[in-house]
Amino acid sequence: MMRTLPDLVVEPIVRLALAEDLGRAGDVTAAACIPAEARMTAAFAARRPGVLAGMQCVRLAVLAMDPQARVDVRLDDGAAFEAGAVLAVVEANARAFLSAERTALNLIGRLSGVATLTRAYVQAVAGTGARIADTRKTTPGLRALEKHAVACGGGVNHRFGLDDAILIKDNHVAVCGGVAEAVRRARAFAPHLMKVEVEVDGLDQLDAVLALIDQGCAPEVVMLDNFSLTDLRAAVSRVAGRLVLEASGGVDLTTVRGIAETGVDVISVGALTHSAPVLDIGLDALES
Amino acid sequence: MMRTLPDLVVEPIVRLALAEDLGRAGDVTAAACIPAEARMTAAFAARRPGVLAGMQCVRLAVLAMDPQARVDVRLDDGAAFEAGAVLAVVEANARAFLSAERTALNLIGRLSGVATLTRAYVQAVAGTGARIADTRKTTPGLRALEKHAVACGGGVNHRFGLDDAILIKDNHVAVCGGVAEAVRRARAFAPHLMKVEVEVDGLDQLDAVLALIDQGCAPEVVMLDNFSLTDLRAAVSRVAGRLVLEASGGVDLTTVRGIAETGVDVISVGALTHSAPVLDIGLDALES
Amino acid sequence: MMRTLPDLVVEPIVRLALAEDLGRAGDVTAAACIPAEARMTAAFAARRPGVLAGMQCVRLAVLAMDPQARVDVRLDDGAAFEAGAVLAVVEANARAFLSAERTALNLIGRLSGVATLTRAYVQAVAGTGARIADTRKTTPGLRALEKHAVACGGGVNHRFGLDDAILIKDNHVAVCGGVAEAVRRARAFAPHLMKVEVEVDGLDQLDAVLALIDQGCAPEVVMLDNFSLTDLRAAVSRVAGRLVLEASGGVDLTTVRGIAETGVDVISVGALTHSAPVLDIGLDALES
Amino acid sequence: MMRTLPDLVVEPIVRLALAEDLGRAGDVTAAACIPAEARMTAAFAARRPGVLAGMQCVRLAVLAMDPQARVDVRLDDGAAFEAGAVLAVVEANARAFLSAERTALNLIGRLSGVATLTRAYVQAVAGTGARIADTRKTTPGLRALEKHAVACGGGVNHRFGLDDAILIKDNHVAVCGGVAEAVRRARAFAPHLMKVEVEVDGLDQLDAVLALIDQGCAPEVVMLDNFSLTDLRAAVSRVAGRLVLEASGGVDLTTVRGIAETGVDVISVGALTHSAPVLDIGLDALES
Amino acid sequence: MMRTLPDLVVEPIVRLALAEDLGRAGDVTAAACIPAEARMTAAFAARRPGVLAGMQCVRLAVLAMDPQARVDVRLDDGAAFEAGAVLAVVEANARAFLSAERTALNLIGRLSGVATLTRAYVQAVAGTGARIADTRKTTPGLRALEKHAVACGGGVNHRFGLDDAILIKDNHVAVCGGVAEAVRRARAFAPHLMKVEVEVDGLDQLDAVLALIDQGCAPEVVMLDNFSLTDLRAAVSRVAGRLVLEASGGVDLTTVRGIAETGVDVISVGALTHSAPVLDIGLDALES
Amino acid sequence: MMRTLPDLVVEPIVRLALAEDLGRAGDVTAAACIPAEARMTAAFAARRPGVLAGMQCVRLAVLAMDPQARVDVRLDDGAAFEAGAVLAVVEANARAFLSAERTALNLIGRLSGVATLTRAYVQAVAGTGARIADTRKTTPGLRALEKHAVACGGGVNHRFGLDDAILIKDNHVAVCGGVAEAVRRARAFAPHLMKVEVEVDGLDQLDAVLALIDQGCAPEVVMLDNFSLTDLRAAVSRVAGRLVLEASGGVDLTTVRGIAETGVDVISVGALTHSAPVLDIGLDALES
Repeated sequence: MMRTLPDLVVEPIVRLALAEDLGRAGDVTAAACIPAEARMTAAFAARRPGVLAGMQCVRLAVLAMDPQARVDVRLDDGAAFEAGAVLAVVEANARAFLSAERTALNLIGRLSGVATLTRAYVQAVAGTGARIADTRKTTPGLRALEKHAVACGGGVNHRFGLDDAILIKDNHVAVCGGVAEAVRRARAFAPHLMKVEVEVDGLDQLDAVLALIDQGCAPEVVMLDNFSLTDLRAAVSRVAGRLVLEASGGVDLTTVRGIAETGVDVISVGALTHSAPVLDIGLDALES
Repeated sequence: MMRTLPDLVVEPIVRLALAEDLGRAGDVTAAACIPAEARMTAAFAARRPGVLAGMQCVRLAVLAMDPQARVDVRLDDGAAFEAGAVLAVVEANARAFLSAERTALNLIGRLSGVATLTRAYVQAVAGTGARIADTRKTTPGLRALEKHAVACGGGVNHRFGLDDAILIKDNHVAVCGGVAEAVRRARAFAPHLMKVEVEVDGLDQLDAVLALIDQGCAPEVVMLDNFSLTDLRAAVSRVAGRLVLEASGGVDLTTVRGIAETGVDVISVGALTHSAPVLDIGLDALES
Repeated sequence: MMRTLPDLVVEPIVRLALAEDLGRAGDVTAAACIPAEARMTAAFAARRPGVLAGMQCVRLAVLAMDPQARVDVRLDDGAAFEAGAVLAVVEANARAFLSAERTALNLIGRLSGVATLTRAYVQAVAGTGARIADTRKTTPGLRALEKHAVACGGGVNHRFGLDDAILIKDNHVAVCGGVAEAVRRARAFAPHLMKVEVEVDGLDQLDAVLALIDQGCAPEVVMLDNFSLTDLRAAVSRVAGRLVLEASGGVDLTTVRGIAETGVDVISVGALTHSAPVLDIGLDALES
Repeated sequence: MMRTLPDLVVEPIVRLALAEDLGRAGDVTAAACIPAEARMTAAFAARRPGVLAGMQCVRLAVLAMDPQARVDVRLDDGAAFEAGAVLAVVEANARAFLSAERTALNLIGRLSGVATLTRAYVQAVAGTGARIADTRKTTPGLRALEKHAVACGGGVNHRFGLDDAILIKDNHVAVCGGVAEAVRRARAFAPHLMKVEVEVDGLDQLDAVLALIDQGCAPEVVMLDNFSLTDLRAAVSRVAGRLVLEASGGVDLTTVRGIAETGVDVISVGALTHSAPVLDIGLDALES
Repeated sequence: MMRTLPDLVVEPIVRLALAEDLGRAGDVTAAACIPAEARMTAAFAARRPGVLAGMQCVRLAVLAMDPQARVDVRLDDGAAFEAGAVLAVVEANARAFLSAERTALNLIGRLSGVATLTRAYVQAVAGTGARIADTRKTTPGLRALEKHAVACGGGVNHRFGLDDAILIKDNHVAVCGGVAEAVRRARAFAPHLMKVEVEVDGLDQLDAVLALIDQGCAPEVVMLDNFSLTDLRAAVSRVAGRLVLEASGGVDLTTVRGIAETGVDVISVGALTHSAPVLDIGLDALES
Repeated sequence: MMRTLPDLVVEPIVRLALAEDLGRAGDVTAAACIPAEARMTAAFAARRPGVLAGMQCVRLAVLAMDPQARVDVRLDDGAAFEAGAVLAVVEANARAFLSAERTALNLIGRLSGVATLTRAYVQAVAGTGARIADTRKTTPGLRALEKHAVACGGGVNHRFGLDDAILIKDNHVAVCGGVAEAVRRARAFAPHLMKVEVEVDGLDQLDAVLALIDQGCAPEVVMLDNFSLTDLRAAVSRVAGRLVLEASGGVDLTTVRGIAETGVDVISVGALTHSAPVLDIGLDALES
């Protein structure tokens, strides 16, 4: 089914972005050059092939500037397209539309860049059982949108924040004096709808985690951090499906297939959100 | 002199980012695993060489979570560093510090990525008279920070928004019925402290702009959009220093030097902010 | 370990509450009657026995009005106390303190009311394996605080919002055409760190859920809605520990023990947050 | 006439409540199980008899999620209803409606709880001249709504905050060195549209206040705090209609009639807002 | 006693003003010309005689930019001063101080302008029993501050907003079908701590109001709108102290004394806040 | 062409102003006296001749209270009008309209006051080459609106804030050790779309600035602060059109023509925004 975020969640982000661009005086170029009542029609068009994410931002940005605008959405988020594809056609007050243009393009370009990169990773592991996941290495202020873009590209979302799942990392283990004690504390803390994941940096730590299964306090997920392919395979073998295994660290498009073929369940990739290049989408004025 | 942004400008962005990560329940892992009074000391360390931007965000993120934290800044924004360099050392309440870690890293990594990429472009044109400029293709919500990062990398800032300079583009020209009329309208509109720039897509449009000089209504800056090197050289020759020339379009690290050598004054590069990969900076716990 | 919420999460709520009380003109009674430089010392004292929650709100409210105030916290959140117990002693500017008094009392009284009622439910099921959980029937704007208060009283937190776990209810089942199909959709949607719970209204629906276990797409938790004690026992028996069972509906202090003794894992109680009476806490001026 | 609050005052509270529930990712259950374009019709129905307050919140919550929703309001705020009464029927996008459901119910249930409890007090004093008033012991963030609910139940509103009337309490008296001096200061401070109320804890303090009448600086209202019935009657007799008398302290449904029969003008009851149980209102899906 | 507004009320206004001035990039002149660590000392000095209001804004503006600044306040709000008087001396980081300068001066100059004009009106009626009151014709966003400034100048504050007193004007009377009916509705609506004022435009309307006294539903205050001096005297005579009389309309410094001598209690003057010229206050750098 | 500000920029200011007036309880007079469904029609009419600014605020204030209102705008911002002119006619819900009335009038009156005063200055210099400019001495929170009003009156806008142009003043010069060094630092700092202005207090400082022209680092604009007419003429002569000259200080309606006739390009006048009296605009109820 089509994924959507509530407008109530997205609109404040779009308005903040517009306000940042409009500054105190608004679009002085439009005020100088464009009659107040002029209207224009233009198409959002892809300059490169990719996967769409962020059409909602385009719609909300245009409507925030001109509530009477008509936004004809041609493709939904998650759709793949070729270079040249028309994504949406907008008819609106010209000053308002030109003032919204850069914000709309910044958002849809950035989010489609994330979706497109995610799709590349997903395709690279096609046929294995592995899923591609994002991280919390997102752009400050845009986490909800970027995680949505990852989902549009076929990836799965990791934690949305510090509060919706427990993820024990090396610093926590150090304070607790060991991975088993850390997991026990987490298990005792976690309510019945909250999962626990623990990061391990070697097979010995993994074994300590596995020993918790019989004690009834195992985590649901184990993150294998910077494991070699050999160790990943060993981990998959030892766990034997009893826990979800997530590989992380050193993942790029050249290594991801090998990692997936070890049998891990999830591969998390920070680059999906922290280093995705923008997707080139432009605006073409149409004869109205 | 050291560039700084007021804390008053940066702090709301940092707090928004922290709030986004903390969600409703805060850092459940820290709450589960770390005693409330535990303290920790850790260093922000570079994993790759680069140029620093965003140290203010680190300081404000840590202090927002623990006002009693000590943040020992080792390098200022704009400094170049090698892999392994210690950028700052922080001593703070452990729960608070771990809760701030990801936000601090997301910001400093992203901004240093921008600064580092900018530095690469600046170095690529070293010795020519050209300066490297950013665009408005910034991350929504982070424009002030990303433009600061470009300055840290040695670049210059283009407009900060739609309101602080006039930039006439093709859509404005189309409505006005020609580049000369568009500039005349802009000139009549612009107050005495606001500059006017016009984008031209060929030498004929440039000539129309040059004809305005004698009429006393020339723009201060002309953007040469997607000009060939030959046309760039011709433009530089025709303008003969009377106007500032900015080249844009099709700029990357392999083409920028050739463009600079045509004699243009400014080269604007959207990729500085829309496609800079994050710089890898990590946090190393220290014995306290 | 002591539960804490980050000040960054709580402070905006406290400041909003103070601003609501101060209005446009501030505390006119204090301005009329109390010299600007007068100071006062007073104790927050319990008029009834109970369990403490919200001391952080008291501290933040007083400091928001007088950053130089001294707040001497005598009991931490989660502590049980008798009538007459001194919870904290504050020395502050008198105008500031009197202006913060009502807000501080409103928050600590309400939250301690929640914690105290939770403790009563927890004690009522002592010795059974059941845990007492809250719901999303919280006061708008205070969810984080009220869920914290439930935890202070010994309860466990259900979902924090619509976004951190899937909970399939009757309306979702109706649209999907059956409980099995609804769970399948949810399972396909849920990332690896998100749990799925499904509400069933009878043993036949429960059986449909149990059939999903062998298909590898079972939910983690099943909510037994308004089951009779007989049916609860039957459900516990059929599930045999393979899924977590949550009882809900018709729970009060007279019925909760019987429900717990059926062997369910969790009992969720809306009244913890939607109908807890305030705990009577007052402020006693001290000789300073 | 029908009491209304401006949407401008209520909408921010409703949107804050929705945002709190939607979190970062929105309603994941609806996204997983409900088609994006599905619509549904449902009725808000009372499970218990009561007095309505908060219908505006229901309308604004639904429209905030789906501006095209149709909200058919069947009863206005202030109306009494029986168990089973249909309060409103809503037709809306199903995902949007289900996402708004809990927020709408939390608000209307809580506010109708306040209105219903207020009505009980008002009916308990029927036929006496006493009016039932609320206090500032309201839920932080919801004062305007809860005071509206009290009015819906037939009560009168006390001060809305610290700034719209002067209320001298024991701490102010202590600093001023006596009730007469405190009132004099207050009277000198109060502009011509601001009333002054003073709390007294015994008949001797009341006499000190009455002595101010001849000096032309009496307060408009005197609060008799924790007076016995005997003393209340004595106070009414001594004041003889020259000032408004408000009784407070130790008021519950068993004592309120006796207090009213002493002849006081107003009885203030903190429990109206700090301890009203939620009124049970539910949502019933209809065949659309 | 010294009037103060809570910092919590004033600080958001000051920070909004600073943010408006700092824009996206902060103070570029200071960044270009002033070393980051330079400090400066300067005095806020009066260029003209007047009455002080807004010193709190100066302190908060400077501290918002430099929390380590030292602000030595020499005069309190409400004090009268001569030209040349030093109002405060500040030592702070030079960049921060220069960035705060204009905001601080804009606020203290505007508010002291209001206080100074108020004082002129107050002195013009000295010896009569009349008090000078403000109106709701204040600067949007600055009502609390401007009303505070009126009080500093010796005036009294009228309503703070639409919600803290009832003021019946001609449009209300027209809808109600007469002044008596309008007052009756208002009286029935008003809680015991809310006053009712009614505007009358002639002696016949005044008589209709006076007739309400015996019916026990009179307003506390009557506004005599645009009455001639003769009619004002007649009104004072007819009312004979039974109600508070407020004159409004056509008041300026040449007419106010005559109006006061008619015996009215209050004279409200919109010009206090809508047309007060700024008081000239400047900043003088000192040798540090 | 008609100047417009985006609604997105203006609406938050209008809503803040409405919220300030509505307070917690909304318009109690309207609630008491006006039926909830009553409608009314009224005209915004000028009581004095002037120049219009702020009609957008009227429209947004009315629509914020009643989205179904009809606002028939009769004159656009920038239009001159006589006393008695009808500026707009509004038909709306009566409670909503009366609640918006004061906010709408406060804004349109204040802004039209600024526009009207600006027009007076502009007409005073008619026929000279001088333009009238505003300053940053604006009302905190209303800068964008007041600068718009200045433009409506025929003036030009100076800097919008600290960030969109460099303006070197005496304190910067003092720190830099001279006007030439200050300009050099500013020139080095300023990007290609940012102008530099320097304030000089005598002809010798002007000469120092002129010497920079040959060094290629001159500012675009020089502010002649508090120059005598003789010195202004000398400055105009020495500069000979090579730089823009702005006169400031000691400007009022009696002196501005003489200053303009010296040949300066721009005259900046703080009084336009800091001391403009409100323009008297009222609301007249119409038979509907």
